[in-house]
Amino acid sequence: MAKGASISGFPEWLPSERVVEQRVIDTLRKVFELNGFIGIETRAVETGASLLKKGETSKEIYLLSRLQEVGQENDTPVEERLGLHFDLTVPLSRYVVENSGRLVFPFKRWQIQKVWRGERPQEGRFREFVQADVDVIGEGTLPDHYEVELPLVMVAALEELRPYGCPKATVHANNRKLSEGFYRGLGLTDIEGVLREIDKLDKIGADEVAKLLVLTCGATEAQAAACLELADLTAADGAQLREKFDALCAAHGIATDGEAYALAIQGLDTLAMIIDKAAAIRPGSVIADLKIARGLDYYTGSVYETFLDGAASLGSICSGGRYDNLASSGSRKYPGVGLSIGLSRLVSHMLHVAGAHASRVSPAAVMVAVWNEDERDASDAIAAKLRARGIAVDVAPTAAKLGKQIKYADKLGIPYVWFPGQDGAGDEVKDIVSGEQSPADATSWEPDSMSARQTVVLD
Amino acid sequence: MAKGASISGFPEWLPSERVVEQRVIDTLRKVFELNGFIGIETRAVETGASLLKKGETSKEIYLLSRLQEVGQENDTPVEERLGLHFDLTVPLSRYVVENSGRLVFPFKRWQIQKVWRGERPQEGRFREFVQADVDVIGEGTLPDHYEVELPLVMVAALEELRPYGCPKATVHANNRKLSEGFYRGLGLTDIEGVLREIDKLDKIGADEVAKLLVLTCGATEAQAAACLELADLTAADGAQLREKFDALCAAHGIATDGEAYALAIQGLDTLAMIIDKAAAIRPGSVIADLKIARGLDYYTGSVYETFLDGAASLGSICSGGRYDNLASSGSRKYPGVGLSIGLSRLVSHMLHVAGAHASRVSPAAVMVAVWNEDERDASDAIAAKLRARGIAVDVAPTAAKLGKQIKYADKLGIPYVWFPGQDGAGDEVKDIVSGEQSPADATSWEPDSMSARQTVVLD
Repeated sequence: MAKGASISGFPEWLPSERVVEQRVIDTLRKVFELNGFIGIETRAVETGASLLKKGETSKEIYLLSRLQEVGQENDTPVEERLGLHFDLTVPLSRYVVENSGRLVFPFKRWQIQKVWRGERPQEGRFREFVQADVDVIGEGTLPDHYEVELPLVMVAALEELRPYGCPKATVHANNRKLSEGFYRGLGLTDIEGVLREIDKLDKIGADEVAKLLVLTCGATEAQAAACLELADLTAADGAQLREKFDALCAAHGIATDGEAYALAIQGLDTLAMIIDKAAAIRPGSVIADLKIARGLDYYTGSVYETFLDGAASLGSICSGGRYDNLASSGSRKYPGVGLSIGLSRLVSHMLHVAGAHASRVSPAAVMVAVWNEDERDASDAIAAKLRARGIAVDVAPTAAKLGKQIKYADKLGIPYVWFPGQDGAGDEVKDIVSGEQSPADATSWEPDSMSARQTVVLD
Repeated sequence: MAKGASISGFPEWLPSERVVEQRVIDTLRKVFELNGFIGIETRAVETGASLLKKGETSKEIYLLSRLQEVGQENDTPVEERLGLHFDLTVPLSRYVVENSGRLVFPFKRWQIQKVWRGERPQEGRFREFVQADVDVIGEGTLPDHYEVELPLVMVAALEELRPYGCPKATVHANNRKLSEGFYRGLGLTDIEGVLREIDKLDKIGADEVAKLLVLTCGATEAQAAACLELADLTAADGAQLREKFDALCAAHGIATDGEAYALAIQGLDTLAMIIDKAAAIRPGSVIADLKIARGLDYYTGSVYETFLDGAASLGSICSGGRYDNLASSGSRKYPGVGLSIGLSRLVSHMLHVAGAHASRVSPAAVMVAVWNEDERDASDAIAAKLRARGIAVDVAPTAAKLGKQIKYADKLGIPYVWFPGQDGAGDEVKDIVSGEQSPADATSWEPDSMSARQTVVLD
């Protein structure tokens, strides 16, 4: 990371690192568009009212004030002030409602942008970072096949990043209706509370969560134990999931003719569909994991978290779910499902664990040398010819001694140095790695295909 | 523009408009990289101290406060608070100083990012917009050939946008040393003041500017008239510029052996070099215009503004200059030169005046129909085969009546609908514009080359 990071939580990349981030962004965009997603960008700000409506991060917001208004900021209620968005889902919901008459539904959109969290500065937490999202928003209804397609799009996108140091990704899916139905069947009522505690399982372990369920959610020890058993349930396929779930319900006396069970089965049907369909298309990519709860309270059905092989400490790098009530206009609802990649954290892992970096700092494949400043025009003319053929070119900054010019190219990783012909002689080009030098014509010469483009390599 | 723009000054594009903005960004990046510029991205925030240091926009800053700190924001002095950057030059200077040990100088960088101006809301002013910048920063010194190369890179970039509705661009160049030397030669001392008033020429006209020069800068009427004569000076080439300038000095009694004249000639030499070299490479692209002053006070030499043919009311859409004192660390200086395209305003012009829009809303070239939900897997498998070959594909959202599925494709502008073969029959693909339908194989079929990719077209 750039040594600076001179403001804690606001990461900046050095040029060679930025090439990796840019490659990740370009690759994700390519996959999203191959799948028919439409790119949008929303403004960085939303009203306080919009930001405070939903989500547990609602307290981690940066509000804006104009310099001229310093001292009078609080004359305006927080709801009417502007704040930086903390995710891309809340802005999408607002955008869809505002522009519903001009969009085609279901609206499949991708969006890669910075978001901000107004957290207290602390080690390792980003306060500014990039998210890469795909969502599908329906008008009135939204078919549930998108609940398996979207995680599969994300898996396909992450798979494309593996040559650049992204480990194999697995999406862990659950369904809030399944959890809620089970908890209600047990007699619990503080569903949000139980989900919040279950969400802590990976961080604090089962014993602590059991204590918290009793302490904060009014659960008996038996109810708490049952919640932990559900979180622990694994299944190879949809049929086994159903079988194990029914066994658990029977063990805890949950009636199969009640409303709670019916709700759970709604969620289970979707989850079973997801894992069976994903297994058929890309085995091992999406699995059922009944401890996935997701903090944000706008999810109403499927929830997803994504983990990378050998990178457990990174936590989930691609999360999301289905939200049926986030966007509405009058009586019209816009249910959605989407996932969001924590792109900055992912890039940080690729850089610092996998050792990803640019094959060279400069995009230029060639540096044209300059014999003396009076002949710079000749060097510029060669550069123009090469650029017209799509070859990226730099020209030596000064007509310094040749060794110094070559050193400039070398420090930037530029593989070729071009020598303009003098006194009637033709041009020559030198591969500064092999040292090989040969005659060249700017209207036809091509760099070696391996050196033509700046790319991302691993240590 | 998206109907919303529900917060004044924060524009958002509809999907078809966003395609134009994205194409502009992609095109600029391509040209910048062809010229060997290195892409970076800086954080959105700087400290108040850094933002307040330079520039007349320093009063148009958004400061941030964490929601938890509402009511206590002002316990922290403005200098220590965080604010959103108002341009990309101040952040670049800070980035270069912080990372100087890890960069290669001269550091040629491109950067395309949003910036924010904390202005009072008013018609037609953006408070959030995208800038596209190129700058070269030297360590200690910076050769002046960059002062003609950078405007030429911008002209080349804008030229690439002409098929998408950007008019022909002309860079108007001046040099602050030339102006300052002339003003001092006249006996004026409030140089910043004179530049500020001259900057208003296009807006309020010569008579008003003359009055202001007398009123606010202590000029006599004769001095004011001389300043306006300089602003009016035009020249076909460097030699004529020198000749006309010397005549003007003689007319106003400016001694050619004084310090003021020497300063002016320093500036004139650079400006003459710029227009002569630009004329040789791309005639008519960069011209001398001695009324260009630039508001931001960090410029120390060349200054540029860029105007589009037939779009005078748009003002300058690409401005910049040379700044020798913006970045320094101890006694080490980092002089720079750069230009910045007001990308959002340019895109707005291309959309609303030239009628640029996406050739289709969806990136997909094909929509695969779904006969019924039980056979969705077959449609998905076809889509996967096409995508593996780089063809962007959408799949029908529901197994609705065929007419409804085709209507969905049509509304998104998707040119082909794919019909999976049933009962042993082969697949077929229909061009929904021509109505032509023919057998097709997902492992080999190619769309018509005109329809293969989403692009930008004009009305």
